Amino acid sequence: MQDRFLQAAINEAKKGYAEGGIPIGSVLVYQDKIIGRGHNRRVQNGSAILHGEMDAIENAGRLKATVYKESTLYTTLSPCSMCSGTILLYGIPKVIIGENKTFLGEEDLLKSKGVQVKVVNNSECFELMTKFIQEKPELWNEDIGE
Amino acid sequence: MQDRFLQAAINEAKKGYAEGGIPIGSVLVYQDKIIGRGHNRRVQNGSAILHGEMDAIENAGRLKATVYKESTLYTTLSPCSMCSGTILLYGIPKVIIGENKTFLGEEDLLKSKGVQVKVVNNSECFELMTKFIQEKPELWNEDIGE
Repeated sequence: MQDRFLQAAINEAKKGYAEGGIPIGSVLVYQDKIIGRGHNRRVQNGSAILHGEMDAIENAGRLKATVYKESTLYTTLSPCSMCSGTILLYGIPKVIIGENKTFLGEEDLLKSKGVQVKVVNNSECFELMTKFIQEKPELWNEDIGE
Repeated sequence: MQDRFLQAAINEAKKGYAEGGIPIGSVLVYQDKIIGRGHNRRVQNGSAILHGEMDAIENAGRLKATVYKESTLYTTLSPCSMCSGTILLYGIPKVIIGENKTFLGEEDLLKSKGVQVKVVNNSECFELMTKFIQEKPELWNEDIGE
């Protein structure tokens, strides 16, 4: 059975794709509930910092350190150095990643700092990103600073 | 003579303090011009991700990779793991830091990735942060996930 939180992240990614954006979605989960959900908003908001994970964390609002430290972040794609740095800033202890074949982020850095990282190799995440990168390679490169 | 770009970052920090916010400011400089300026907006926007550096980078808008790679980021305070991760994502090659005594960020990580890091030990930056931390320690702890 598909994890319902990963499914919520995928739904965010699909929403982003439907908006003409970069299809990466994320949710922040605390005590078995989604407290923040988001998707990449580079195109939609003209944003350089609202990756999917950043948008989910931003939408969760201002939280006490204790909440982050018992939360799990779900993301459809391996988190880049910005998103990984944010995970480390707030001490989010667990990250569930849809796939890391189209982009491998800072998983090693996260693990070296004690973050539990799980890649689930979800085919829907992989196919959506593969399609998007083929369609808009320049937009994708912009998003990862290349 | 005070570097005019660091001075612009300090002015942003002071603006943040005057707004009741966290007094950290930053500017992104390209070809000897400020292309983005910002300050921490945790209080003002209820934001978990708009540190000074993030706000400056966001306000610079969507940029080509080549622009970041020839830019310098000025910040009044040593950049945390989130802001450092963003510097690395975009390949910003040089970071000028007002002070790192009230908070030491990921300077070692930046250096290990080839970023040129210069700490100028500016007394105005140090005094502003020291005053703020004494006045609002809980707000400061929230901002650094503690």
